[in-house]
Amino acid sequence: MSGDLHMSPDEFRRRGHEMVDWVADYFERIEQLPVISRVEPGEVRAALPAAAPEEPEPFAAVMRDLDEIIMPGITHWQSPHWYAYFPANSSGPSLLGEMAAAGLGVQGMLWATSPAATELETVVVDWMVDLLGLPTAWKTTGPGGGVIQMSASDSTLVALVTAREQAAAPTDTLVVYASDQTHSSLEKGARIAGYGHVRSIATDAEYALDLAALEQTIAQDRDAGLTPAFVAVTVGTTATTAVDSVRRTAGIAAREGMWCHVDAAYAGSAMICPEFRHHQDGLELVDSYTFNPHKWMLTNFDCNLYYVADRRPLLEAMSILPPYLRNEATLSGDVIDYRDWHVPLGRRFRSLKLWFVLRHYGAEGIRRFIREHVRLADELAARLEADDRFELVAPHPFALVVFRHTDGNAATSELAKRLNDSGRAAVTPTTLGDISAIRISIGSTRTTAEHVDQLWSMIDELA
Amino acid sequence: MSGDLHMSPDEFRRRGHEMVDWVADYFERIEQLPVISRVEPGEVRAALPAAAPEEPEPFAAVMRDLDEIIMPGITHWQSPHWYAYFPANSSGPSLLGEMAAAGLGVQGMLWATSPAATELETVVVDWMVDLLGLPTAWKTTGPGGGVIQMSASDSTLVALVTAREQAAAPTDTLVVYASDQTHSSLEKGARIAGYGHVRSIATDAEYALDLAALEQTIAQDRDAGLTPAFVAVTVGTTATTAVDSVRRTAGIAAREGMWCHVDAAYAGSAMICPEFRHHQDGLELVDSYTFNPHKWMLTNFDCNLYYVADRRPLLEAMSILPPYLRNEATLSGDVIDYRDWHVPLGRRFRSLKLWFVLRHYGAEGIRRFIREHVRLADELAARLEADDRFELVAPHPFALVVFRHTDGNAATSELAKRLNDSGRAAVTPTTLGDISAIRISIGSTRTTAEHVDQLWSMIDELA
Repeated sequence: MSGDLHMSPDEFRRRGHEMVDWVADYFERIEQLPVISRVEPGEVRAALPAAAPEEPEPFAAVMRDLDEIIMPGITHWQSPHWYAYFPANSSGPSLLGEMAAAGLGVQGMLWATSPAATELETVVVDWMVDLLGLPTAWKTTGPGGGVIQMSASDSTLVALVTAREQAAAPTDTLVVYASDQTHSSLEKGARIAGYGHVRSIATDAEYALDLAALEQTIAQDRDAGLTPAFVAVTVGTTATTAVDSVRRTAGIAAREGMWCHVDAAYAGSAMICPEFRHHQDGLELVDSYTFNPHKWMLTNFDCNLYYVADRRPLLEAMSILPPYLRNEATLSGDVIDYRDWHVPLGRRFRSLKLWFVLRHYGAEGIRRFIREHVRLADELAARLEADDRFELVAPHPFALVVFRHTDGNAATSELAKRLNDSGRAAVTPTTLGDISAIRISIGSTRTTAEHVDQLWSMIDELA
Repeated sequence: MSGDLHMSPDEFRRRGHEMVDWVADYFERIEQLPVISRVEPGEVRAALPAAAPEEPEPFAAVMRDLDEIIMPGITHWQSPHWYAYFPANSSGPSLLGEMAAAGLGVQGMLWATSPAATELETVVVDWMVDLLGLPTAWKTTGPGGGVIQMSASDSTLVALVTAREQAAAPTDTLVVYASDQTHSSLEKGARIAGYGHVRSIATDAEYALDLAALEQTIAQDRDAGLTPAFVAVTVGTTATTAVDSVRRTAGIAAREGMWCHVDAAYAGSAMICPEFRHHQDGLELVDSYTFNPHKWMLTNFDCNLYYVADRRPLLEAMSILPPYLRNEATLSGDVIDYRDWHVPLGRRFRSLKLWFVLRHYGAEGIRRFIREHVRLADELAARLEADDRFELVAPHPFALVVFRHTDGNAATSELAKRLNDSGRAAVTPTTLGDISAIRISIGSTRTTAEHVDQLWSMIDELA
């Protein structure tokens, strides 16, 4: 094709430098931007033309629209004032790894389609087993193994499908169990996988799975002729980061012949620090585990890790080998083909950014990062506890603090609204049973003690 | 956190410029690199340490290992000598859009979590309806709508699950129909969705779905008490880019009450040129459609588009609203929350790169790009046809040429091996029934007439 159609390497070099500067400038000014976008529904869409351009447009016009039309509609997840949902970390090394991966543009669906993409993935998922104190049997050298997927929703779906295929009863008689605090992806995955029944089990005073209630529900289902097939254990629930007992739930699962899946999507990052690992005690008894470095481990979305204790049922459930994917390496059995570990066939070279992050920070750097956020959360929690206007509504084992205004739900909701309207914070209002509460999730890459002090001053002032 | 832990915006700026240069340099030398990596299984892995570093490492060390350890294990999908599988396009504007999206690091799971991410996606998926000549009812302003997903496998799974939820019979009695040339993601998706039966229907002399065989199998299944529920129509099969009849298959689907899904993962890109649209005649009769701009439309992976004619059954099958995701905008019904359109909750700002591509090239630029590759494929096919040593084994409606050596399967396989071993081409050997064949897929971003001439010379010489 002629040079005027494609962007030449030289023009890419020039525009690429501009874009890197644009991103670096963004990081320099992000702290000053209103965290939550103030556009109204339809505002961005109305500012864009109804049809694509027929002829090429100058790159400068695209950059201008990025600044003028898109940016006002951005909610700044990378702001140091971000306390909403869970963090969606990125970092310099991660972005650089993403750039390299996009530039190479390889498909890692098979070992043969780009061997380094497969082998680096194997190396980093094995590294993570040691870094997080996971069972060594989960390494590729053991019977298990790990793989990078897009999200915990995808991992949980794969776990549900694998368990369903292992179950010796019709799908519509199979039952999935999880606490009423479990992430919605479990219910969604169970629906997609076709499970007949999903039981939402009560939680205890600390919002952790009530094991007596679990056992009672299982017994009732057995009596009704149903087959308990799957139980989800959450280490760090979405609403409050509550921790279900891995060991005790896995014991029940073993006795009942159920698949036991652990969702540590958020809290998994903390396990790089040994002092948090008591929360995952019993992992050697479970079947599968999901964790998101793209939340609180400095690696930009998407980067979810999925581990299984035994890779055979996973491969049996997920592998199909059509003629156009046959190749010597696959047929030899000497290599891993990660397409057999999840739903999609195509896959980006996502291990590259995680490798960049692990090498730039080192394990010790990531531990410092995690510990500082946990310390800041503990401090904020202490301030809230010491003030009569506020009360904590749940323990804070990691870096999420959940509290309410002692004047009740209306005052709590109003405080959340004022904080979010201030432009200087994003928090998530939620409900726990009948209680309105505010989630303060400390974990954004650039959040420091100074930012949390500012947040506390705002809470103090706006309450 | 202290500045020495994170990469500062200034250091990111410097390293970012280095990385852009690394990518630009790669594009300048990519043509000279052996297309297919020559590493042996385990070679890359053995060169990497068994444990992650405890302490931070200098960035230069990471870049050195990228060059020395990773690069020899890369198979160059972006090489202009890439003729294997299908293309996995990238382009300058796409990479710049990806950089911006990664820098912003927003989650577009809800409108409220970053309004511009949702609204730009709506705009570009609606633009694409006009660009590809899709039914206007598929625009967001109509009853249908489009969404960006990771891959056609993900889209097809969503279609299968939605259809299953619409079906009025038990899942294990539901039957999925597709030609024996259908992509493996159909069988995989049907297995994941729990369908009881998948029928592989014979194809005609041009490898398109044999409609008489389809009708006969449906009748047999009805007689056996089963429920025909889903039929897949492929516009551009993987092996030969054969085209099933959309209109006639959709007619059968309507009569039988089946969901009709169109997989145009590869060939969808060609539809930006009106002269190819006769291949998709009848789309107004189907329920869902999947197409990958990340194959042959200059947009780097991942960027799959999924359209439905009616979004209601999709949303009924996929939406779940837990307390922590409730918000005014969602409850008002005035906005789109794309998490309800697919499996994962989290989502990258992928519309940005597609928007960059559409504006940089304009529709006319993309048409030139597609038409040039089709012209080159036609020329290569004419050369092969005119030579007694070769014969085409299938029609070539787009830019894939499939041929064999007239000396038979061994000669064909040997030619494929020689081409791939040359380092100057990557082609895909495949089988069609008992016939060995070679797939030449012309569609890499930088593939020009000169490259295809070189390929022809090699075929001529090595045969």
